Amino acid sequence: MRIGLIVILSLFIMSCGENTTDISTGTSTDKKAASAGSDTQQTFKWKLVTTWPKNYPGLGTAPENFAKKVDAMSGGRLKIKVYGAGQLVPAFEVFDAVSQGTAQVGHGASYYWTGKSKATGFFTSVPFGLNAQEMNGWLHYGGGLELWRELYEPFNLVPFAGGSTGVQMAGWFNREINSMEDIKGLKMRIPGMGGDVFTRAGGIAVTIPGGELYTSMQTGVIDATEWVGPYNDLAFGFHQVAKYYYYPGWHEPGSILELIVNKDAYASLPADLQAIVEGAARAVNQDMLDEYTARNNTALVELVETHGVDVRKLPDEVLSELRKISGEVLEELATDSEIANRIAVSVKAFQEQATAYHAISEEAYYDARKQ
Amino acid sequence: MRIGLIVILSLFIMSCGENTTDISTGTSTDKKAASAGSDTQQTFKWKLVTTWPKNYPGLGTAPENFAKKVDAMSGGRLKIKVYGAGQLVPAFEVFDAVSQGTAQVGHGASYYWTGKSKATGFFTSVPFGLNAQEMNGWLHYGGGLELWRELYEPFNLVPFAGGSTGVQMAGWFNREINSMEDIKGLKMRIPGMGGDVFTRAGGIAVTIPGGELYTSMQTGVIDATEWVGPYNDLAFGFHQVAKYYYYPGWHEPGSILELIVNKDAYASLPADLQAIVEGAARAVNQDMLDEYTARNNTALVELVETHGVDVRKLPDEVLSELRKISGEVLEELATDSEIANRIAVSVKAFQEQATAYHAISEEAYYDARKQ
Repeated sequence: MRIGLIVILSLFIMSCGENTTDISTGTSTDKKAASAGSDTQQTFKWKLVTTWPKNYPGLGTAPENFAKKVDAMSGGRLKIKVYGAGQLVPAFEVFDAVSQGTAQVGHGASYYWTGKSKATGFFTSVPFGLNAQEMNGWLHYGGGLELWRELYEPFNLVPFAGGSTGVQMAGWFNREINSMEDIKGLKMRIPGMGGDVFTRAGGIAVTIPGGELYTSMQTGVIDATEWVGPYNDLAFGFHQVAKYYYYPGWHEPGSILELIVNKDAYASLPADLQAIVEGAARAVNQDMLDEYTARNNTALVELVETHGVDVRKLPDEVLSELRKISGEVLEELATDSEIANRIAVSVKAFQEQATAYHAISEEAYYDARKQ
Repeated sequence: MRIGLIVILSLFIMSCGENTTDISTGTSTDKKAASAGSDTQQTFKWKLVTTWPKNYPGLGTAPENFAKKVDAMSGGRLKIKVYGAGQLVPAFEVFDAVSQGTAQVGHGASYYWTGKSKATGFFTSVPFGLNAQEMNGWLHYGGGLELWRELYEPFNLVPFAGGSTGVQMAGWFNREINSMEDIKGLKMRIPGMGGDVFTRAGGIAVTIPGGELYTSMQTGVIDATEWVGPYNDLAFGFHQVAKYYYYPGWHEPGSILELIVNKDAYASLPADLQAIVEGAARAVNQDMLDEYTARNNTALVELVETHGVDVRKLPDEVLSELRKISGEVLEELATDSEIANRIAVSVKAFQEQATAYHAISEEAYYDARKQ
């Protein structure tokens, strides 16, 4: 995308539809009269703050789905009220708000918190890194989640994978990209690690709130912008202000969102509600990818067939150079701290094996299926 | 794979470690003394029968994980006892046993039940069809699950997606495959729809229990066999009796396993336990793919580096011809019944769009990542 912009966007677009005067009074607990004394009847009221506008398609509906699932599975014993960015706390304060217990849960993306630790970037997506299926394999069967928990432990947070967008698009461009020369001086909205790589490649990476992107492209303030993929991009109408839609999204190949839970609040739950929180997170984690997989398909058809979008692939030479620079950026990141190094070693080893296996399975199958 | 063989295998290999005399007495329900009268304290004891040997890696551990998750999330209110194939009912009687209520839940694969309705085959995997990510998109956001529920409704069953192996391998061969000529007369263990296609291509498709495959390859009873992928194949030791390991698994590109629940038993649950069953199924559905994604990687390394396995790609000409024949087989399947036709139309439309989108996202990314 980059998801990052939605954060800022959410500070500007308040699509809330919900009144913050409706806020409940924190981690209140009470006993149902019918079964006083039974731990299993204690009820909890939690707040979930997000880095997205309330109900933003895909990204913002996932925390709503999480709250609904927890409510249903707990028979109403754990009620979670979802706040869009800015409703209870600003988007960029989600991490601190959950860390300090102002809210019990947060939904966002780990790479927003590189100011806390640069290593957080590994748990969303890195340029030329793992795709969604591989990220989930690494997190849940490759030691990734344990490292993520260790990284967040000093912040009093328990992280869970909370959804994925799949591979994103390279973005919308008003200049043809035929070689690295065309990157030189190109003003593109591309934040985060992707932006670092883009800058080293000679481009000018800028950060602009999502809500301003359409106008920025229209008026020529920027020459290009990335966002997410067809489903979200169509909704923003970028096809009306850009000439070319480039793929693939080298900068975010398998973005994983995060659900973070305040450690004390989590510990205060009985074991069954802890299991429900974990189970609902896992279910939502897959559900979001399912949604993007289905809806990106239909949105792409609309972009191409209804709006005549010119879809183009970045030249191999450009991808190759960006990949080389990405390797340098990641190597530097690994030297940031002892844990950053351990995470880098873990994910690199996983990627080497996953790349080899997927070359003869998923990748080879896409090739075999072609008409 | 084909998963199918594990079913039969499970009739032969009883790796059970659990005594069937330990069977509980059905859908017994009782009230906890501490909270008599409260619906939420009613407890249920269910039986889960599977088409796999008890605790078979990946496929058999998924139903165990499902039972554990349900137990934890329900605080012990829904206890599910898992039986390997043959412990309570034979593998191929799982569908009937759950339909009739002998057991409340079953775990297997829908394409075992083509004798009930040929359309069941669509919900596991079809040759040159959807991969795992796409199957999940189609099922949960493309109308697939609704069609599956409609198909199983007359059998008193509620199906859920219950795991995936990802793309499988084409299999182990003792004859080089350089053209369609080499398929002619080749005796290969490849059941199901893949076997139908293989037979039309001039091969001799046979069905042999998994437990006999090693010996059958060793003694030359068969020239080739498919199974699952590196993780499961390594465990069976096929590298000791076969010369070549071919990819990709055109016949099962994204096998989805199923959790089937007896409709009356499901309806008898309070709403929170129903939500827990659904949530746990969804969590396990992703968990299995995560496990295969991680463990296939390491198993492939062992096969190649430790055992020197000769990994080869099926020639494009062969894949192209198999793809053509697969199209014919699927077209015939669509004429089997009114619902088979509707399912075929739905999945075909989804695949057309998914193929187009993944060509510029997941597939293009695999390509961009290459060294």
